[in-house]
Amino acid sequence: MDMNDHFHEECGIFGAYSPADYDVARDAYYALYALQHRGQESCGIVVNEDGIFHSHKDLGQVSMVFSSEELARYPKGRIAVGHVRYGTTGANNRNNCQPMEVNHQKGKMALAHNGNISNAFELRRELELSGAIFHSTSDTEIIAYILTRERLKCPSIEEAVINAMPYLEGAYSIAVMSAAKLIIARDPHGFRPLCFGQKADGTYIAASETCALEAVGARYIRDVEPGEVVVFSDGGVQSVREHCGTKRHSICIFEYIYFARPDSVIEGVPVHAARLKAGEILARTYPVIADVVVGVPDSGLDAALGYARYSGVPYGIGFIKNKYIGRTFISPSQDERASGVRIKLNPVRSTVEGKRVILVDDSIVRGTTSGRIVRLLREAGAKEIHVRISSPPFISPCYYGTDIDTKENLVACQHSLTEIAKMIGADSLGYLPIDSLSELVGHNGYCHACFSGQYDTAVPENTSKERFERPLSESGTGEA
Amino acid sequence: MDMNDHFHEECGIFGAYSPADYDVARDAYYALYALQHRGQESCGIVVNEDGIFHSHKDLGQVSMVFSSEELARYPKGRIAVGHVRYGTTGANNRNNCQPMEVNHQKGKMALAHNGNISNAFELRRELELSGAIFHSTSDTEIIAYILTRERLKCPSIEEAVINAMPYLEGAYSIAVMSAAKLIIARDPHGFRPLCFGQKADGTYIAASETCALEAVGARYIRDVEPGEVVVFSDGGVQSVREHCGTKRHSICIFEYIYFARPDSVIEGVPVHAARLKAGEILARTYPVIADVVVGVPDSGLDAALGYARYSGVPYGIGFIKNKYIGRTFISPSQDERASGVRIKLNPVRSTVEGKRVILVDDSIVRGTTSGRIVRLLREAGAKEIHVRISSPPFISPCYYGTDIDTKENLVACQHSLTEIAKMIGADSLGYLPIDSLSELVGHNGYCHACFSGQYDTAVPENTSKERFERPLSESGTGEA
Amino acid sequence: MDMNDHFHEECGIFGAYSPADYDVARDAYYALYALQHRGQESCGIVVNEDGIFHSHKDLGQVSMVFSSEELARYPKGRIAVGHVRYGTTGANNRNNCQPMEVNHQKGKMALAHNGNISNAFELRRELELSGAIFHSTSDTEIIAYILTRERLKCPSIEEAVINAMPYLEGAYSIAVMSAAKLIIARDPHGFRPLCFGQKADGTYIAASETCALEAVGARYIRDVEPGEVVVFSDGGVQSVREHCGTKRHSICIFEYIYFARPDSVIEGVPVHAARLKAGEILARTYPVIADVVVGVPDSGLDAALGYARYSGVPYGIGFIKNKYIGRTFISPSQDERASGVRIKLNPVRSTVEGKRVILVDDSIVRGTTSGRIVRLLREAGAKEIHVRISSPPFISPCYYGTDIDTKENLVACQHSLTEIAKMIGADSLGYLPIDSLSELVGHNGYCHACFSGQYDTAVPENTSKERFERPLSESGTGEA
Amino acid sequence: MDMNDHFHEECGIFGAYSPADYDVARDAYYALYALQHRGQESCGIVVNEDGIFHSHKDLGQVSMVFSSEELARYPKGRIAVGHVRYGTTGANNRNNCQPMEVNHQKGKMALAHNGNISNAFELRRELELSGAIFHSTSDTEIIAYILTRERLKCPSIEEAVINAMPYLEGAYSIAVMSAAKLIIARDPHGFRPLCFGQKADGTYIAASETCALEAVGARYIRDVEPGEVVVFSDGGVQSVREHCGTKRHSICIFEYIYFARPDSVIEGVPVHAARLKAGEILARTYPVIADVVVGVPDSGLDAALGYARYSGVPYGIGFIKNKYIGRTFISPSQDERASGVRIKLNPVRSTVEGKRVILVDDSIVRGTTSGRIVRLLREAGAKEIHVRISSPPFISPCYYGTDIDTKENLVACQHSLTEIAKMIGADSLGYLPIDSLSELVGHNGYCHACFSGQYDTAVPENTSKERFERPLSESGTGEA
Repeated sequence: MDMNDHFHEECGIFGAYSPADYDVARDAYYALYALQHRGQESCGIVVNEDGIFHSHKDLGQVSMVFSSEELARYPKGRIAVGHVRYGTTGANNRNNCQPMEVNHQKGKMALAHNGNISNAFELRRELELSGAIFHSTSDTEIIAYILTRERLKCPSIEEAVINAMPYLEGAYSIAVMSAAKLIIARDPHGFRPLCFGQKADGTYIAASETCALEAVGARYIRDVEPGEVVVFSDGGVQSVREHCGTKRHSICIFEYIYFARPDSVIEGVPVHAARLKAGEILARTYPVIADVVVGVPDSGLDAALGYARYSGVPYGIGFIKNKYIGRTFISPSQDERASGVRIKLNPVRSTVEGKRVILVDDSIVRGTTSGRIVRLLREAGAKEIHVRISSPPFISPCYYGTDIDTKENLVACQHSLTEIAKMIGADSLGYLPIDSLSELVGHNGYCHACFSGQYDTAVPENTSKERFERPLSESGTGEA
Repeated sequence: MDMNDHFHEECGIFGAYSPADYDVARDAYYALYALQHRGQESCGIVVNEDGIFHSHKDLGQVSMVFSSEELARYPKGRIAVGHVRYGTTGANNRNNCQPMEVNHQKGKMALAHNGNISNAFELRRELELSGAIFHSTSDTEIIAYILTRERLKCPSIEEAVINAMPYLEGAYSIAVMSAAKLIIARDPHGFRPLCFGQKADGTYIAASETCALEAVGARYIRDVEPGEVVVFSDGGVQSVREHCGTKRHSICIFEYIYFARPDSVIEGVPVHAARLKAGEILARTYPVIADVVVGVPDSGLDAALGYARYSGVPYGIGFIKNKYIGRTFISPSQDERASGVRIKLNPVRSTVEGKRVILVDDSIVRGTTSGRIVRLLREAGAKEIHVRISSPPFISPCYYGTDIDTKENLVACQHSLTEIAKMIGADSLGYLPIDSLSELVGHNGYCHACFSGQYDTAVPENTSKERFERPLSESGTGEA
Repeated sequence: MDMNDHFHEECGIFGAYSPADYDVARDAYYALYALQHRGQESCGIVVNEDGIFHSHKDLGQVSMVFSSEELARYPKGRIAVGHVRYGTTGANNRNNCQPMEVNHQKGKMALAHNGNISNAFELRRELELSGAIFHSTSDTEIIAYILTRERLKCPSIEEAVINAMPYLEGAYSIAVMSAAKLIIARDPHGFRPLCFGQKADGTYIAASETCALEAVGARYIRDVEPGEVVVFSDGGVQSVREHCGTKRHSICIFEYIYFARPDSVIEGVPVHAARLKAGEILARTYPVIADVVVGVPDSGLDAALGYARYSGVPYGIGFIKNKYIGRTFISPSQDERASGVRIKLNPVRSTVEGKRVILVDDSIVRGTTSGRIVRLLREAGAKEIHVRISSPPFISPCYYGTDIDTKENLVACQHSLTEIAKMIGADSLGYLPIDSLSELVGHNGYCHACFSGQYDTAVPENTSKERFERPLSESGTGEA
Repeated sequence: MDMNDHFHEECGIFGAYSPADYDVARDAYYALYALQHRGQESCGIVVNEDGIFHSHKDLGQVSMVFSSEELARYPKGRIAVGHVRYGTTGANNRNNCQPMEVNHQKGKMALAHNGNISNAFELRRELELSGAIFHSTSDTEIIAYILTRERLKCPSIEEAVINAMPYLEGAYSIAVMSAAKLIIARDPHGFRPLCFGQKADGTYIAASETCALEAVGARYIRDVEPGEVVVFSDGGVQSVREHCGTKRHSICIFEYIYFARPDSVIEGVPVHAARLKAGEILARTYPVIADVVVGVPDSGLDAALGYARYSGVPYGIGFIKNKYIGRTFISPSQDERASGVRIKLNPVRSTVEGKRVILVDDSIVRGTTSGRIVRLLREAGAKEIHVRISSPPFISPCYYGTDIDTKENLVACQHSLTEIAKMIGADSLGYLPIDSLSELVGHNGYCHACFSGQYDTAVPENTSKERFERPLSESGTGEA
């Protein structure tokens, strides 16, 4: 399914630590490029040139923000952090671009964050009462303040990170760069992925997904464990794990189903394999006599292949997706859509005409896109259309770093399976059973809150996206 | 295989003729967008507002050249022509952007051309001797002159087109807009595709491929026949066919194998079906015991599926292609490539690790890209790699509108099959047999000159790409 | 007075011819920069690298069109031509940018033109009947065709220029570059200025004004004479003068009054000196008792100083002009203007408060700007305002390369002196007497058609600005 | 003298408070435009739409940063603040753009600042020790923290401003916007100007200079007094003056001589009048027999006129300054300069040839520009050149908001008058006597530290421009 009609991962992060100066910005560029699917709103790279930070951040995708001229402006360096971000729309949120750079009493720090702090509201209130001012509306600035507060009390940045973690609830995979070190850490639940590897020249590369390691030619070493802090410094690589107690392992299962790139491997499980398995489960659970299985590009293709392989129904190429669609593309109007324009996706008539088609997609959000795709197939001559969805229905919002939304916008909260099938025009409809999710990854330590409503942390007090746009005290003193 | 390591189609054309004024520029935009794969160098749209031409053309892809602001600047109109172009590199060739607009004694004309005039050199020499001046280095300006010359002698633009055709040799699918009419025509050999259809509101849409008709919601009517001239005017649709004698039908077979979009149908044959067939032939001709068949995205996928279906070897998803790569992307250096960066294509390890892999691609040009891809698979753990190519080897340049090059740059001219297999590191290699090409389309009326060296027109006198950059008389008078 | 409320010169031209390759594009850049006042709509430079032309042209001012990156893209060369242009508005007239480059039977040619061909309509009709096609709507393309036609008949480009001149009527100062030569020429009346000089390294520089020679450090040699053709080639500098008969010398007097830069010297007369003289004549002709003389920046300052010197009334600085106003500035609305915003010009209250002010400007076009300026002074406390204009009233359009307009838009055609004074709110008003114009230059060989209605050539048949936007034959065959 | 070879004012500020919503961004645009001479590095506008802040800030001049599209994006509002800034070079200092917007416990605040806090280093150290983090390297963020700290302790923003002022030393004219109020304040010494006025519709406008009031059609009311805080709110206009004790009045005298626009009036003294007076003093102090007095455009013109009027030597227009020079202009190289290119300034030969010239400029910084200008006049034929400078020699750096530099870069610290005259090639040289400065403004309450070394506050501990680029504790713990 297309990014624009889909839930979004909110970030991807990158860090590099090298034994010697090199063109580290270039590695950051290629790694962020490989992580682009995790965030297209803004991006940034901060290079550490012997203690001096050189930074460029802006709204836009990696290849737009970093011209070759811009990239050439970076000096060589040994350490760097980078970030891609999906956030709220609007031209003026440059302040929210990451990595966030701050100056504090002990020096400089650049911070890249993927996740969502679920007690951000409470932390911010507390910080503001002690005189803090906020330039952004992101929870990353809250992490920066907590790190700074701890840094004042202890002799090293890594201890500051370790001491800060008990205050932070929710999801966070972070990369922190100081004048001389790179620290990466993952929250005790391990909601978001984070791994690291090494290049032949000794440079350590940390990233949200393994595909970013491969983009820069680094060999994967391992995933960061939930609650672990890894420090890269002149003293080599050090790991601290035993500091924040034991929590349930809660890797986001939707990373496997949709967010991550199929060529990435998360905690030992190839994403592509998990998707093939989802297709297999769908074939096992909802068999149907049909002539061809097609996936919705790009994220439905793997599960469609899994379905075909298990069921024996031939796999087919059902759609051509226009690969030139970029940020500047002018989307068709509602009228144009109604009148049948087929800009982004066009069915391959020879695949589906006169056929009973099994259509596999990864999810249904509001149902409008799915309805449109079913209609496209119908117009191209499909006789029957059986929709199979490689995730369970969404019924609850996500508080851990994606934009899975309020119940009002989730079609599965408002309608029964039969109603949804009718709404989207499918002859039959099957969702992945929630109790089969563990088959995808081979264990039970994953977060399924968006499918089950069972959260592994306290649910945030204030969950409005605009919670930091208005003063926290607004209903309070009556003056501002 | 990737566009950047590939031969290029040189153009796509578009025309619209409506019973009433409407936002015709928007249809042109979406249609050119669907034809973007035929040319990414430059594009343009000319809208006819009751005899006044409004034009915008520039270097770049459709979504870059036409911002919503730019698109909104067009008035409504009844007629429009559009063009996407692949040409030589260099920033300063704006003069070669199409549609070409010219003013002549009888009025205005806008001209969009896909193909290559093989007697351009001779025609240009003749025109220059009669005082013609040339602003561009494209053969389209030559067509414009010939049309103008004929237009002076006859009472209508369509007669001018008909009378001009006997002078023009080679490949041309053209759309010509005058103050009141749209004329589309295809050369007598029919080298390049051209079709037209109609929208529900009566608007006629002409385009190089059916995918562009579908992009604007038009119903396909039929392909323009070789040598046919179709006139859209207040008098309705008229066709003239009997004016240029009978020539061999020579539709470019490589349109089916690579250039065209798989969801297009050319002269009744679905492109996707032709590619499945190519895969099938490969499976039949070069069987091998293997564990998985993978295609090189995007153009190798259809033939890979055809191979898998026929052979029974499972189809797999072997590569992830980064879909964010745009024009502004900074390509990795030779060094970075050597050190194993995997930016554009990354193998899916879980698909190929420990497997005997059949790798299907559409062609081999110089062999370097194929070698790189084979190496990627090897590094990802493939045990054996059997390369199957869904076209015959290139041995001769194309003079009909693509950039298939001089013999020096074609690996198959310099090396035997065994040598090529060794060069690219494949365990075995098989090309589509040239005598099976007719199976792809079900007839023999196609051009296979690039595979056979047998041309259906006289071979041009001067075939240098720069032939119009230097004065024709250069070796002549010695003064300029 | 401000450029935006003023008549415009339509072009400035540049040529260079050097004994050896050097960074000639850079000289062109600085020279065009110095000529920017002659045209801000578009600009272009063509560099000749041993017979290969490298060109960049675009809409916009010199410093916008030529980034340092763009400028660095030019190779070294021995010959170059350049152009700045003021033309009609509209984003899509890139086709009209100059220098115009054409390819003809004998080679390449780049052409830069300042002026206006008064028989363009007739020439174009004739050319079109012989099969010519036109890409632009400028008369420069007509010159290019005539040159090409002659070039076919004779052995050298310079002879082609000489033979073409009898066909061309009206105003033209041109620079023509071939593969090996630079030719500059001025029409037999000498309507527009043209001069040349030489740098210390031997490079010849030709330009519309001497300020461009000074910008590149060239020593002025002399003005090109009316009807003269000067050829720069390996054979040195050659001049041909005796080929087009004797015509009345008709240098545009408004070049001295407004168009040219005050630091330029045209035909031996410093522009600044001519303007001082105009102020002196005004003081002599319309004396008035006053406290201060102020000029409207920038073009009224010289005459104001001349008035002050002759009259003995102190010269004052009456206005500050915002020097940051560029192309992208958002002009105030009519409402904002009415409510007193003072964006571009602000009076210096301490200069005029409580004073009797003599206000000197170079011309009155529609009267609205003059009225606004008088009101500004009044609001700043001026007791009396006596307006003196350093040109006679405009009563006739210009056909020789400026946009002095139809009679309907010229306030002096519609109203008496008393009426105009009242309209603009002046206590008194005096225009430069037409019979004193010869005092500015010390001779009678100047064109005063815009002030007198006496033209030195036949008045053009069709003078509409859009005359080439519609087909010439439009009222003819009824079909296009 | 030209901006690029000159000392720079570091900022200009703007505020608006209206009884009703209107297009306040547009007023901000025109006012900042009028203040552009105070800072061309970056600019920004924050509009308050009923408590919601809408902001756009970027590097570049007003007309570049605010396209009409960008300006139209602002909603209507009642309150706004704006800023133009000159700062250090470098593309990546977007973080330092103002107005600075911060969120604190009691709400939002936008802050625009002109000046320099001389105890910034100490304040920042103190804030950092309490856990503050800094996103920018400007002292404005320090003011924001101090305001926030005070705001937490008191019931209103205006009291926070009043209570913050005793902590802040040095120069600051500020505009602070909260959800409901606009507060403007000037430091107790009154180093930088600040005034306010009112439009016919009741809107209050505050700005650094009166020219900005005039740009939006506001009537000047009065200057803010040193140490005064003015509050605009629903309760009307309130002034608080008696809160920070009495300090010496220290308006920057160089505002009159160079920084401010000549049409502005500061504390009752017209800037133009002060400059005429400076010229008069020079004429009185250093008379010389000469033929013409010329000023270096633009800032030397007023004093030149004052010199001419007092001395009786005729005033002349000695130079033409190219008015098209913008941000994107490519400056000539050192070589080109040496070879005599005259791009920005060109002498008017007819004014100076064969003459004894008095050349008036506002200051000499390093001497190179002055030397170049003298040489230009010499090459244009001037017989004698007597340089008169309308300020005393710079001998000490400025700590109050300009970039007057370290002693090493000030020619007058290194050389005697005679040496400087020789260096720049002048026949004689005279600077404005320091003890005549009071004549310019008619009182003694001005800052002359850059000319005398006498500072009205403690001299800052650390005055390096990069003092906030490195951690304050750097020499401390040895780890960061």
